[in-house]
Amino acid sequence: MRTLSLVGIGSGNPDHLTLQAIRTLESADLILLPRKGDEKTELADLRRMIARDLLKTTPRIVEFDYPVRDANTPKYLDGVNTWHDALAEIWGALIHEHAPGDGHVALMVWGDPSLYDSTLRIADRLRARGLTFDVSVVPGITSLQMLTAAHAIPLNTLAGAVQITTGRNLRMQGWPSDAATVAVMLDGDCAFQTLPANDIHIWWGAYVGMPQQILIQGPLQDVAETIVETRAKARSEHGWIMDIYLMRSN
Amino acid sequence: MRTLSLVGIGSGNPDHLTLQAIRTLESADLILLPRKGDEKTELADLRRMIARDLLKTTPRIVEFDYPVRDANTPKYLDGVNTWHDALAEIWGALIHEHAPGDGHVALMVWGDPSLYDSTLRIADRLRARGLTFDVSVVPGITSLQMLTAAHAIPLNTLAGAVQITTGRNLRMQGWPSDAATVAVMLDGDCAFQTLPANDIHIWWGAYVGMPQQILIQGPLQDVAETIVETRAKARSEHGWIMDIYLMRSN
Ligand SMILES: C[S@@+](CC[C@H](N)C(=O)[O-])C[C@H]1O[C@@H](n2cnc3c(N)ncnc32)[C@H](O)[C@@H]1O
Ligand SMILES: C[S@@+](CC[C@H](N)C(=O)[O-])C[C@H]1O[C@@H](n2cnc3c(N)ncnc32)[C@H](O)[C@@H]1O
Repeated sequence: MRTLSLVGIGSGNPDHLTLQAIRTLESADLILLPRKGDEKTELADLRRMIARDLLKTTPRIVEFDYPVRDANTPKYLDGVNTWHDALAEIWGALIHEHAPGDGHVALMVWGDPSLYDSTLRIADRLRARGLTFDVSVVPGITSLQMLTAAHAIPLNTLAGAVQITTGRNLRMQGWPSDAATVAVMLDGDCAFQTLPANDIHIWWGAYVGMPQQILIQGPLQDVAETIVETRAKARSEHGWIMDIYLMRSN
Repeated sequence: MRTLSLVGIGSGNPDHLTLQAIRTLESADLILLPRKGDEKTELADLRRMIARDLLKTTPRIVEFDYPVRDANTPKYLDGVNTWHDALAEIWGALIHEHAPGDGHVALMVWGDPSLYDSTLRIADRLRARGLTFDVSVVPGITSLQMLTAAHAIPLNTLAGAVQITTGRNLRMQGWPSDAATVAVMLDGDCAFQTLPANDIHIWWGAYVGMPQQILIQGPLQDVAETIVETRAKARSEHGWIMDIYLMRSN
């Protein structure tokens, strides 16, 4: 039986790879190495570096481009679904071509494969198309863990609940009613600006765990503007940005 | 300046240690190794094994017992605060005795130091008592990541929000209004039994990532009883249990 390993590689710091991630990548017959969007070169370089410098034996590596998601599809989820279909198509073709039979194919996944990542859903689609394989998931350090570690703060308040959400949800639904802490990912638009700023503390980070890391924290009303400006500047300087933040209401 | 490193060691599988965790432990002058409650022997053995087998150079190791938390304190949070004070006292004494001056003290933390863990709060108390040191946090794989990896499921629904909470909160507040997914930790009482069972799917795991791992998943109404029974049996067999679960409403 073919095995597909989804291997979390952490969110920018190769030192965050686990022993299990390294061993799984070493034991693969084929590593699929994605190149994505704007951050294409820099992050693909990181993945290549992991393959070259951290593995004792380097299996065959095949790089592939991520299709561009059509942001103009009227319904957001329709766009995502079409995009997942396109990805399943690409993976299927690569696996057929480079790993026929009962091989072990590994895919490097940013952060942890469970957190706002499409690979498990794409694997489901591949199955629905008739490819049979076992899926094995290797956890990796998430960008949220990198954020709390960099700021040296707990994720939760004492015995309190935490909501992990997207910029889109925060913008549409406001502060979730049952959580003292909110962590926001996938926010291209600084959705924190839509909140009433008083009595909220924010811990923000861009490129967390990477050499370019930027951290800002403080009462939302004092630092919101600085974050918006810093983000815009860093984005135009580097050509891409990934940022994440955690907020607590007082 | 003294450094205190809080090092996440994952939630039961030594292979989940990161390269950074290993290097940080190796470079410490002193490792504080906690022994806790019921699971004392087994989990302390795991920590000892990590120190002995995974580190190239083993620094000095000092083991210490966790004080027992007084579950009878009328207010839950008061009990926790007294307990944190007691722990700060113990750490302070150990650090003074074994690592005077500008040493590097590392503490092995279960899972990730940010997630329902007291070490960052205790470090704050130590500071308040006048000990000066830098804190460095090394992220580790959480039990929640172990759970989703073991079941090979995503944490979130497509673009959906996730609530991470405790058994206590779930019991008191019911299903949080803004999240499609709820992950529950620190639940000694199977709080899922207090939910209306229809239309909820549960993925449960005990000892996830460890040799004793048990996984159960299915519609809550079909598997709730099995989980309660399995949990009670495993607990009495092993003398201790740690379990965690994720639920989605349909
Ligand atoms: C598609 S999600 C992937 C998340 C990933 N699976 C994880 O475990 O962190 C991408 C989002 O993760 C966050 N992110 C990933 N890496 C990051 C980094 N190094 N610094 C800041 N945010 C990051 C950003 O919010 C970004 O929009
Ligand atoms: C005090 S919290 C510590 C959590 C830890 N810092 C982490 O990152 O997973 C203890 C709770 O974590 C969960 N837990 C920790 N290890 C576990 C394991 N191996 N299997 C199942 N649950 C676990 C249980 O819900 C337990 O009540």
